[in-house]
Amino acid sequence: MESQFFIPLWLDLTAVGLGGVQGALFASGFQGQRRLDLLGVAVVGIMMGFGGGMIRDLLLNEPVRALQSNWYLIVAIAAALVGMLLAGPLARLNGVIVGLDAIVIGMFGALGTSKALSLGLPLLPAVFVGVAAAVGGGVARDVMMGLPIAIMHVGSLYAVAAGAGCLVLALLHLFDVDLLIAGIVCVAVTAVIRWLAVIFDVSLPEQRMLYRR
Amino acid sequence: MESQFFIPLWLDLTAVGLGGVQGALFASGFQGQRRLDLLGVAVVGIMMGFGGGMIRDLLLNEPVRALQSNWYLIVAIAAALVGMLLAGPLARLNGVIVGLDAIVIGMFGALGTSKALSLGLPLLPAVFVGVAAAVGGGVARDVMMGLPIAIMHVGSLYAVAAGAGCLVLALLHLFDVDLLIAGIVCVAVTAVIRWLAVIFDVSLPEQRMLYRR
Amino acid sequence: MESQFFIPLWLDLTAVGLGGVQGALFASGFQGQRRLDLLGVAVVGIMMGFGGGMIRDLLLNEPVRALQSNWYLIVAIAAALVGMLLAGPLARLNGVIVGLDAIVIGMFGALGTSKALSLGLPLLPAVFVGVAAAVGGGVARDVMMGLPIAIMHVGSLYAVAAGAGCLVLALLHLFDVDLLIAGIVCVAVTAVIRWLAVIFDVSLPEQRMLYRR
Repeated sequence: MESQFFIPLWLDLTAVGLGGVQGALFASGFQGQRRLDLLGVAVVGIMMGFGGGMIRDLLLNEPVRALQSNWYLIVAIAAALVGMLLAGPLARLNGVIVGLDAIVIGMFGALGTSKALSLGLPLLPAVFVGVAAAVGGGVARDVMMGLPIAIMHVGSLYAVAAGAGCLVLALLHLFDVDLLIAGIVCVAVTAVIRWLAVIFDVSLPEQRMLYRR
Repeated sequence: MESQFFIPLWLDLTAVGLGGVQGALFASGFQGQRRLDLLGVAVVGIMMGFGGGMIRDLLLNEPVRALQSNWYLIVAIAAALVGMLLAGPLARLNGVIVGLDAIVIGMFGALGTSKALSLGLPLLPAVFVGVAAAVGGGVARDVMMGLPIAIMHVGSLYAVAAGAGCLVLALLHLFDVDLLIAGIVCVAVTAVIRWLAVIFDVSLPEQRMLYRR
Repeated sequence: MESQFFIPLWLDLTAVGLGGVQGALFASGFQGQRRLDLLGVAVVGIMMGFGGGMIRDLLLNEPVRALQSNWYLIVAIAAALVGMLLAGPLARLNGVIVGLDAIVIGMFGALGTSKALSLGLPLLPAVFVGVAAAVGGGVARDVMMGLPIAIMHVGSLYAVAAGAGCLVLALLHLFDVDLLIAGIVCVAVTAVIRWLAVIFDVSLPEQRMLYRR
């Protein structure tokens, strides 16, 4: 079964590296009391680089893929250090960051959903695993840094973008579309929804009740 | 081994649905800055619906049962949305909520302990897995929402009620009592202790030292 | 494979017991609003006693060792209660506490890295698992208590000491040194770095950028 589902190492590591850079840029925003030391930056880089993939593999009861090779840790930590050193100039390219981030989320979602489908999970759980893989690194980062969990509060279409992409992938898989093509569509759908949400400042409706208290 | 231990899907889904409603009622209390969007409500519903079961299966190194069927996600999310829409009238029935909650905790504990025993775990670890399954959803909810973990602070016999119920189940199993009967006793013990603790406002003694500093 | 790697139960339980005492001493510092009840103290003792070992086994996709025997829970909870009752006199022995703590961290790291190597993980992932086992209990404790995660903030060489010890162990294993000897060296390296860091108040450099913003 696993043999049907082969993700090339370079693709996985690209996602890990982009995640690690994101993590370091995020960490660079912390000043004063909450500033991080080098270890803190590396931890955030690791969380954003393969925290989502770890959560995916734990949910699937599979060996954690990022621990089967030395490369994942090397790439995540190196990316975090590069991101830390270049945080100044990169911060000026905010558009590039948000753009890249949306693509990384899409990649984590596509890798998570397709691995779950390859292992025989039904459609909705496979989408759930994909979303957990996409947003899990950010949740782990927020918990480690003692921040409010970003995806839980009003004003973000982050998880929704990942969910839409993963759902499209799972539906395409149902109709026997090749996983590679379905994965590319997943990344595109996620990134476009996320970009549109940022550009037009869209958010989900808040919770409401049928009756007032 | 697993074949000896068969939990009917409807029973599992009943616990998931009741948990999801609880989660939404809890989320409805948040106003202003901390208010949740629809996704946040769904996440809380999922956490309360099968977060405890996920923790149970991770601890037991078993496939996560809630990911083996589409129904768990459908029921947890639908229950969360129903709970959200009906939060107004349901809030007036506070007694019903606390009553139901105690039964749900008992069910999660019974399902967790009996699954652990079926897999051959010794008595105390099986009780530990049951308590983790009973309170784990609430812990995951509190972490996601950035709240103090409710079971850690003075004034709650929540985990103790679950622990007593799970211990009774494990002892009955030791004396070859049927798991179904032991499970019903577990739910009853948990619910009664929890109800009495609420009615008489009982709490555990605080930590103390033999010598003053 | 597993048969090559035999950790005697008494050694594992010694680490669990020392961790449990540490947890209770830590919990005793909480007064007023954040004070813990008896259950809270037991939970902190369990987290510090075998939280790190649980994280290790989850990452390795192995059965959680602390749930295979009744002894782990008995030792962790008993150690936490002893630590709670003796918190007054023990607090005067602060040097002993810090000294013991460094040794416990080294033991968790050595047990984690050597188990990972025995299961065939490459060098860096094995070190990662060791560090996660060494600091994971403290992270779980901080999350449960709603505290900032200690290892993430400036002023601690905690995780670095564990990482250096685990790396030395993994390198010695590469050169076919016996795991027992490598493990003792790991504990010594970890403890000495940690002690020196405390005595000379050393910390890691903070994050910095190549360009100012």
